[in-house]
Amino acid sequence: MSYNTLSYDVTDSILTITLNRPEQLNAFTVEMCEELIRAFDSASADDEVRAIIVTGAGRAFCAGMDLSREGNVFGLDESIQPTLEDMTSRYNDPDIVAGVRDTGGRVALSIFRCTKPVIAAINGAAVGIGATMTCAMDIRIATEHTRIGFIFSKVGVVPEACSSWFLPRIVGISRALEWTMTGDIFDGAEALEGGFVRAVVPADKLLDEARKIAKRISTRSAVSVAMIRQMMYRNSALDNPEDAHRIESLGMYYTSLVDGKEGVASFLEKRPSNFTAKVSDGMPPFYPWWEKKSN
Amino acid sequence: MSYNTLSYDVTDSILTITLNRPEQLNAFTVEMCEELIRAFDSASADDEVRAIIVTGAGRAFCAGMDLSREGNVFGLDESIQPTLEDMTSRYNDPDIVAGVRDTGGRVALSIFRCTKPVIAAINGAAVGIGATMTCAMDIRIATEHTRIGFIFSKVGVVPEACSSWFLPRIVGISRALEWTMTGDIFDGAEALEGGFVRAVVPADKLLDEARKIAKRISTRSAVSVAMIRQMMYRNSALDNPEDAHRIESLGMYYTSLVDGKEGVASFLEKRPSNFTAKVSDGMPPFYPWWEKKSN
Amino acid sequence: MSYNTLSYDVTDSILTITLNRPEQLNAFTVEMCEELIRAFDSASADDEVRAIIVTGAGRAFCAGMDLSREGNVFGLDESIQPTLEDMTSRYNDPDIVAGVRDTGGRVALSIFRCTKPVIAAINGAAVGIGATMTCAMDIRIATEHTRIGFIFSKVGVVPEACSSWFLPRIVGISRALEWTMTGDIFDGAEALEGGFVRAVVPADKLLDEARKIAKRISTRSAVSVAMIRQMMYRNSALDNPEDAHRIESLGMYYTSLVDGKEGVASFLEKRPSNFTAKVSDGMPPFYPWWEKKSN
Repeated sequence: MSYNTLSYDVTDSILTITLNRPEQLNAFTVEMCEELIRAFDSASADDEVRAIIVTGAGRAFCAGMDLSREGNVFGLDESIQPTLEDMTSRYNDPDIVAGVRDTGGRVALSIFRCTKPVIAAINGAAVGIGATMTCAMDIRIATEHTRIGFIFSKVGVVPEACSSWFLPRIVGISRALEWTMTGDIFDGAEALEGGFVRAVVPADKLLDEARKIAKRISTRSAVSVAMIRQMMYRNSALDNPEDAHRIESLGMYYTSLVDGKEGVASFLEKRPSNFTAKVSDGMPPFYPWWEKKSN
Repeated sequence: MSYNTLSYDVTDSILTITLNRPEQLNAFTVEMCEELIRAFDSASADDEVRAIIVTGAGRAFCAGMDLSREGNVFGLDESIQPTLEDMTSRYNDPDIVAGVRDTGGRVALSIFRCTKPVIAAINGAAVGIGATMTCAMDIRIATEHTRIGFIFSKVGVVPEACSSWFLPRIVGISRALEWTMTGDIFDGAEALEGGFVRAVVPADKLLDEARKIAKRISTRSAVSVAMIRQMMYRNSALDNPEDAHRIESLGMYYTSLVDGKEGVASFLEKRPSNFTAKVSDGMPPFYPWWEKKSN
Repeated sequence: MSYNTLSYDVTDSILTITLNRPEQLNAFTVEMCEELIRAFDSASADDEVRAIIVTGAGRAFCAGMDLSREGNVFGLDESIQPTLEDMTSRYNDPDIVAGVRDTGGRVALSIFRCTKPVIAAINGAAVGIGATMTCAMDIRIATEHTRIGFIFSKVGVVPEACSSWFLPRIVGISRALEWTMTGDIFDGAEALEGGFVRAVVPADKLLDEARKIAKRISTRSAVSVAMIRQMMYRNSALDNPEDAHRIESLGMYYTSLVDGKEGVASFLEKRPSNFTAKVSDGMPPFYPWWEKKSN
C-alpha cells in the first residue's frame, strides 16, 4: 500500500503518519481524506502497530482545506440538496458519502473507531480541518510554532470533523464556543491554558515527546488499550453510570481471563508481563457492543 | 418596545442588556423574567444584533430572587402539586408555565435558543438566579468586585435556570457539585481557577473587554455563528460522534453554498469578506433540526 | 452493625469511613465491597449523617484489588460467559451479581445513589479500584504522599467502578484517556493540574481539610443537598437543558414549600436557618424521578 499525501512509517511498534504536502502546507484534499481513512483502518487492524502519532511535514501541521482546487472546494454535490432524513436513510448511499458527508468527519470517525491510541504532534499551523481533525485524537502536543484556528465562522461555514462532539469534551463548552465563534487563531500557550494540548515543548523535542507518550502505552495490553479507548469515549456519553457498569463488568470479565491472568501472575512473580491477546482476534466476544452504523 | 427592569441598547451591532433595578441590586422578579425572555427573543430575530452582552446597573450584577415581594417569592402556585408527568403533558399549559415552571429556567431556555452569542459581564454580586442565569451564557468575565454564589442549599431550595445542565459542562462535575452543595460565595479568582469565567479584569475595563470579545464575533458570518452555538451545545450532548457528523455535514453543505462561497472567494482574493446570509431568513433548510418543544 | 474491613465513625454529623486493612495497604476484597455498599446505604438512610469522608488507615488509601487471594482474584465465575443481553435481562440475577458484575462498580453505584456528599481524603497510594472508587465521590483531596494509578492496562484488564462514566466528567476526555491508557502512577501535583483533586495539602492537615468542606455542606438543607447531587449528575447527562428544566422546576417547587420557606424567612429575619426537612421522609414526591434499575 502506498500513499500520495502522507507517509506511513512503523518503527518500534509506533506508527507515524506524516501529512506530506509540505509545499501546500499539508492542505487537506479529498485524496488525503481517503488516504487517512485507509491509514487509520490499516493501523487499527495491524497488531504490529501499538500507537499512532500524527504530524505534518515541513513547517505546518495542516493549513486547512486546499482552496486552490477547481469547483466546490469542499467536494460537495450541489444538486443533491439533502434533508435530515437523508442523513439516516441514505447515510451510506455513495452519492451522499461522496457529495454530502463531510470529509473531515469521515476521517474523524476512522480515528474514533481505531483500536490504537492516537497522538497529535502539532508542529505548526493547524487551521480548519487541520485543527478539527486533532480533536478526534486522544492527546495533543504543541510547540512554540503551533498556531491553531477553528476559523470556520470567518470563512462562512461551520466546524466539522465531529469537532462539535469532541471539542467540548476536551476543553469544556465555553472555550469551545469562544474558539469556534470567534474563529481566531491562537498559539500553544492558549491551547495549553484551555486544556486542548497536554504540553508545549520545543519544536525539536516534539516527536520525542510524542514518542515518549506512545511508548508508555505501547507496552501495555493491546486489548486493554483498545477497550479503554472505546469505553472512555462511549460510556462517558451515556445517561447514567449503571449503563457504563454493564460494559465495564463484561470488559473486566473477559479481559481478566486472558491478559488479566498474565498481568496478575507477572505482578505476583515480580517479572515483566508478556501479554498475548491481540486486537485482531482477541477482543472480548461482546465487542463491538454498539450498533455499527457505517464507516 | 420598552422595558421596566432592564435597558436594551444596540450600538455597533452589539446589544447590551443591563439589569436595571440598582436600588434592589438588580434582584430578579417575574417581570424581569418576562422582559429578559422578550429581550433575548427580540435580539435572536433581529439581524442588526450580532452579539449580546449582559451586565448589571450599579454595583451588583443580580443579587438573586427579589425576596421582598409578598406571598410565594418564587411565583409558584402552591395548589397545583405537579407530577413528573405534568411537566411533559402540561408543559405549555398556562397554569404550569405561570405557577410551576422555574422562571430562571424559562430565561435560560430563551438564551439557549438565541441565535446570537451571549457574554456575561459580571460586574458585582451574582447570587442565586444571578449566578445561574450566567451559566446559560456562552462566556463570562469577572472583576475584582465579582462575587458568585450558588446559594440554593443555604436557602433550602435547589439550583435552577438549567444550571444543572450547563454548569457541569463549563467547570466539570466536581466543581459544580462543590459550589452548589456548599452554597458558598466565591470571588473572581476562584471562578477563574475553576474555569467559570474567561478572565478577571479591572472593573473599569469590564465592558471594554466584553465588547472586544463581542466584536471578534460580530464580523463573522451571522449564520455560521448561529449554527455553531446550536451545534456545540446540542451535538456535544449526543451519544456518539456519528450523530454529530450528520448535522455537521448538512451544516457544512448548506453554509458552503452561501456565506462559504463568499468566504473562500474573499480569502483567495485577499479582501475582506462581505457575508450576506441573514439569520432571519438564511438559516439552512434543516434548521432547527431538533424537535421544538416549547418556549 | 459492625464491619471487618473498615471503620464507620459518625462525629458532628460527619461520617468517616476508613478503609481498615492497613497491613494489606487496605487492598480491596469482596468483603470490603459488600461492607462499603452497606456503609453507603446506611449513611444514605440515616438523617444523622450529613456528609461522608472516605480515607485509608495507615500509609495507603487503597492499593487496589487484593491479589493474594486464591483463584480468580476478581471474584468472577468463569463458567458463566455472559452476553451483553445478560447484563440487562439478568442484571439482578444472583449468579450475575456475584460472578460477573464488577465489585467496584457495585460500590460506585452505592455512592452514586447516596443522598449525602462524599469526599475522598486520599492519604496515600490509590491504585486500581483504589483510584477508580474515588471517581464516584464528589470531591477529592490529596497530600504529598498521594499516588494515583489507573493501572488497568498494565495488568491486562480495563477500568471499572463506573470510572469510564465519572472520570471524563471530572478531568475531560483527554486526561482520562492518557491516565487510563498509560496506566502510569502520578502524584498529587499532577492530579491537581488535571483537575482530579481539589487541593494538595500537608498530610497532617488532610482530614481537617476534608472536614472543613464537609462542614460547609453539613449545615445546609439536607434535602437540598440530596437533590443537588442527583440533579447535577443526572441532569448534566441529558440531551438538552429543557429536560433539566422539568426536573429543576419540580425540585424548586417542592423544596420551596418546606425548607425554602424557612430559608427565606430566616434570611429576611437575619437569623440562622432551622431546616427541618429530612432525607428519610422529606424528599419531594417525584423523587426518585429515574427508573430504579437495581442496586
